[in-house]
Amino acid sequence: MQRKIYLEDIPLDEAWAVFRQALTPAGLWQPLPSETIPLAEAPGRVTASPVWARLSAPHYHASAMDGYAVRAQDTVGATETRPIQLNLIPPDQPDAAPRPVLPINTGQPLPTWANAVIMIEHTQPVPGGIEIRAAVPPWHHVRAMGEDMVATELVLPANHRLRPVDLGALAGSGHASVAVYRQPRVAILPTGSELVTVEQAAAAGPRPGQIIEYNSLVLAAQVAQWGGRPTRWPITPDKLDAIQAAVATAAREHDLLLINAGSSAGSEDYTAHVVQNLGQLLVHGVAARPGHPVILGLIHAGDGRAVPVIGVPGYPVSAALTGELFVEPLLAHWQGQPPYQPPTLTATLTRKLVSPTGDDDFVRVAVGQVGDKVMATPISRGAGVITSLVRADGLVRIPRFSEGADAGQQVTVHLYRSPAEIARTIVAIGSHDLTLDLLAQFLAAKGEGLRLSSANVGSLGGLIALRRGEAHLAGSHLLDPDSGEYNLSYVRRYLPETPVVLVTLVGREQGWMVRPGNPLGLAGWGDVANPDVRLVNRQRGAGTRVLLDYELGRRGIDPAGIAGYEREEYTHLAVAAAVASGTADAGLGIRAAARALQLDFVPLTHERYDLVIPQAYYHSELLRPLLALLYDAQFRAAVATMPGYDVGPMGNVIREA
Amino acid sequence: MQRKIYLEDIPLDEAWAVFRQALTPAGLWQPLPSETIPLAEAPGRVTASPVWARLSAPHYHASAMDGYAVRAQDTVGATETRPIQLNLIPPDQPDAAPRPVLPINTGQPLPTWANAVIMIEHTQPVPGGIEIRAAVPPWHHVRAMGEDMVATELVLPANHRLRPVDLGALAGSGHASVAVYRQPRVAILPTGSELVTVEQAAAAGPRPGQIIEYNSLVLAAQVAQWGGRPTRWPITPDKLDAIQAAVATAAREHDLLLINAGSSAGSEDYTAHVVQNLGQLLVHGVAARPGHPVILGLIHAGDGRAVPVIGVPGYPVSAALTGELFVEPLLAHWQGQPPYQPPTLTATLTRKLVSPTGDDDFVRVAVGQVGDKVMATPISRGAGVITSLVRADGLVRIPRFSEGADAGQQVTVHLYRSPAEIARTIVAIGSHDLTLDLLAQFLAAKGEGLRLSSANVGSLGGLIALRRGEAHLAGSHLLDPDSGEYNLSYVRRYLPETPVVLVTLVGREQGWMVRPGNPLGLAGWGDVANPDVRLVNRQRGAGTRVLLDYELGRRGIDPAGIAGYEREEYTHLAVAAAVASGTADAGLGIRAAARALQLDFVPLTHERYDLVIPQAYYHSELLRPLLALLYDAQFRAAVATMPGYDVGPMGNVIREA
Repeated sequence: MQRKIYLEDIPLDEAWAVFRQALTPAGLWQPLPSETIPLAEAPGRVTASPVWARLSAPHYHASAMDGYAVRAQDTVGATETRPIQLNLIPPDQPDAAPRPVLPINTGQPLPTWANAVIMIEHTQPVPGGIEIRAAVPPWHHVRAMGEDMVATELVLPANHRLRPVDLGALAGSGHASVAVYRQPRVAILPTGSELVTVEQAAAAGPRPGQIIEYNSLVLAAQVAQWGGRPTRWPITPDKLDAIQAAVATAAREHDLLLINAGSSAGSEDYTAHVVQNLGQLLVHGVAARPGHPVILGLIHAGDGRAVPVIGVPGYPVSAALTGELFVEPLLAHWQGQPPYQPPTLTATLTRKLVSPTGDDDFVRVAVGQVGDKVMATPISRGAGVITSLVRADGLVRIPRFSEGADAGQQVTVHLYRSPAEIARTIVAIGSHDLTLDLLAQFLAAKGEGLRLSSANVGSLGGLIALRRGEAHLAGSHLLDPDSGEYNLSYVRRYLPETPVVLVTLVGREQGWMVRPGNPLGLAGWGDVANPDVRLVNRQRGAGTRVLLDYELGRRGIDPAGIAGYEREEYTHLAVAAAVASGTADAGLGIRAAARALQLDFVPLTHERYDLVIPQAYYHSELLRPLLALLYDAQFRAAVATMPGYDVGPMGNVIREA
Repeated sequence: MQRKIYLEDIPLDEAWAVFRQALTPAGLWQPLPSETIPLAEAPGRVTASPVWARLSAPHYHASAMDGYAVRAQDTVGATETRPIQLNLIPPDQPDAAPRPVLPINTGQPLPTWANAVIMIEHTQPVPGGIEIRAAVPPWHHVRAMGEDMVATELVLPANHRLRPVDLGALAGSGHASVAVYRQPRVAILPTGSELVTVEQAAAAGPRPGQIIEYNSLVLAAQVAQWGGRPTRWPITPDKLDAIQAAVATAAREHDLLLINAGSSAGSEDYTAHVVQNLGQLLVHGVAARPGHPVILGLIHAGDGRAVPVIGVPGYPVSAALTGELFVEPLLAHWQGQPPYQPPTLTATLTRKLVSPTGDDDFVRVAVGQVGDKVMATPISRGAGVITSLVRADGLVRIPRFSEGADAGQQVTVHLYRSPAEIARTIVAIGSHDLTLDLLAQFLAAKGEGLRLSSANVGSLGGLIALRRGEAHLAGSHLLDPDSGEYNLSYVRRYLPETPVVLVTLVGREQGWMVRPGNPLGLAGWGDVANPDVRLVNRQRGAGTRVLLDYELGRRGIDPAGIAGYEREEYTHLAVAAAVASGTADAGLGIRAAARALQLDFVPLTHERYDLVIPQAYYHSELLRPLLALLYDAQFRAAVATMPGYDVGPMGNVIREA
């Protein structure tokens, strides 16, 4: 097996400097050539040269009103008590009568003898003409030639991205077409013997080891969004010759090649070899996470052109981020634009971040505006977790050598959503329940742009987040071992100074999730102590963990004797997935999670799942639509169809602050 | 001639209420039906229903690293000094050796017997296997099944506009297609006998009275930007039957009709009649400026469907604004989205605004960040001035009955550009010169996103704007009658407390602009007093006006005796246009303006045109690229090609603060 470590590991800005230095002499660090296209095709394209007005606009003196063309001097002296009569004449015969007038509509050319327009509303018809009761100054209600644009004037500069109104200015100044930069043609080449297409995966279900190839979809959509024209190549298996042939072909008709993946240094990572064989390997390995194994190079196309190539890492988050860090700035520059600058926001980090020293660390965060504070909560760091990008509201860049950032620190968030969207986001931190997903769904269906962002940190974590002012509400199902009651004593203990309202979201069954047929025959709480049973547990502070510990304690069972007690997952579904995949035999969870993964369920108890909501937010405009859903028949019916849920107590206010 | 006044004149929100009330029972105030499309076509579309994961992701336990699959329990006890040997086995034969290991690459499935992965970097090859010097915990470097998404989990809610990364999450959870709302099909019908196409106008040059039809281009681009599919209809002349036939045909295959224009109440405005004849006229006239004569209605399509119709006013600014006020919210709602909320900014109004009482007044403004102040300067109010929208950075809405806003008042600007773009805008207020257009052009060509926004208020106005902190620089060519010197004495008088730098932009010729052949034979300054000569003048405070007054004063000529002395224009080109169109015989101006409109030029004097720049901005990063252009050979050459310009003094620093 041929193995090697990364060739280099250079900082992001150095990687760009090396890339630019190679692109410049090849004539590749400048806007693409221009092409002239009809205006109708031009929105979103970028002007390649300044556009000067060929015509004035208006190109003649035009009436600005429906009314009458007059000579201003004929109207002098008209008053309410001394109206003046003006006389209708045939067009272009101003001498046919004294004080001539001619009806004129908006936009019509002013007769050469006239120099003003009187609005129809300010006239009275009289035999042979009209009567007016006020004088008008010269050029009144006339749109003078050139009022909008004068021929030869600069209409639009070069490097201007065309918006709808710009088309109007171009057309109005005599242009039917416009010179714009050619769109960058970008070939995206997925490589990998383990890859299957999205269509294959959806049709047949992928086998273990098969990876659904969707990076090319994401990269193509990014390229299109950034003004390029993407071409998705079919999957090439991990064979040097095959990849080399595909790359050589693609280089002929494209401005940029994205090879995904094989950019790392594994036994079947061929991208670096291909780039070396067909051209010049400039950078292999960038000190950025995710996105580390990036390759930058130049391919010599058969026609003498050099074609830039980017080896894009295979992990989906790394791939998307490589798009943002390398592809976007290049496409922007080829269109005469500066790199995209996302809107930024300063936010308070809710958790400590430890970053690999030496790397620029790009951390996806959820951003919420809670009260007057803006909080940024890091989302899963895994480069393989595409949902971390889907759920992210923005990116925090932790610079290399800073080793991370502390909780409570102010950080700059580069936003994926507008500040307005963030202001309409309800932040839920706490216990996970599938009903929250449904709530998110019903909220979005209102079409008012409201969003529910939920982070799963367990019930206790939720109460602590409320105390820190990081969330609008927390889902909680914490059983008090002394009183047998839910949540109330915990709220008193953890939120002594915050007036909160407790509203029941749902009642639900908890029990053992086991493989179909319950092969180990679990029945009651105590069976988890059976040495053959490998448990998968929930994390500390989760209501389900509290419940398990409570029941074990009542029975005098020592957790240290339970296999797998230390293995922690953060959601019911993750626990169910562990059982379904055979890496554990049992986990405590809700019936719906067992059902979702076709597991059997051994019911043990019923519990109450409440929403804990600080009073200030309970009465806020932001939360009103969410709370209204608890009494919405459609929402209740949707929850009731999920197994193990009891909507009877939904909306009960347990504690009114 | 059939004439009538507007049917109604109702407030914007009432018009919307009437429209919604009619749309709702017809099933037209809800998202459009859904269609299922492949993921590759889905970016920018909006989910019509929630998407739940069909597969977990990963769908198997996958190695997260290149390395070796192991059993964690076999690694216990390994240290630097006491390495443990693990033994290579054939795949799926864990019992072939004690402490088995199997090489594994990133993404490959973990063998069922293994529960952890050791990175290749942390191993030493030995005969028959590898040696390790540290233990690993269970599930180390394993991407557990469902780490990203668990089957049945909510991947995306309904009403979500799909971004590139969302495609990854959809594909990764087993979807090859997605249900999205059908795109609204919007027919745009230009009507008007006076209209000519953009192509006709560009090819032949329009005749007086002919109007270049470009609203349909602007509306179509708006519709596409807002997620609709526009169809531009050919121009229909002003004939009731013809328009009616076109509307009836378009109604059959579209969700929305935009008729442009004929929405007013002139003699040839048929839209209201057409809507009445084919359906229901709901609103005729909205109390908003620009955009007053809007029509809202429903057309009964032959197939029993009702189709909303919007009569769009003809003036280009009104048409574009009608798009924003009526078309965008409707298209957004049909896609399950709230109406677009532009980013906003609070700014200080630089000039008093007088608004028509009773109307919501939408004022285009230029926004500039000068020092720590954000200033909003109103742009021309004319509904026919499309460049007012092109140049606008945002819109200020003056609510009805407020009658306007005062200079210095704080207003909310709904931005057309991002705050970042605005921060990169250099604000020039002062005298107009064609060189400023070139400067803007060269600045844009740098591709760094820098913009020069210039407002033409004359030299004195520019100095006053500097004093008020409204501009970064002012172009000025003010002759001191006492010293015969330029600008210095004015700067001392108007900016006594602001240290400014004076840099010469260019030297230039001033003279009479006259019709070709100079029919009235103007030669010197005094000839303007000839009673046959109709002057067109510049506004008070313009350097050119100061120059004229100075020369008249020297000659004892009374301005009151000069025909047209009161007629004021704001730019050299506007003065030239007045002469070219025959409404004036002479105007004082620069040679380049005369040349631009093919006028003759009678040179009278040379003058110096300086940039007046407060010291703080002269040394700022923002202005550096602009100032560098004054010494740029290409820029100087470009200016030198313009007639009447002398680049010799360009870049001379007259006064260093």
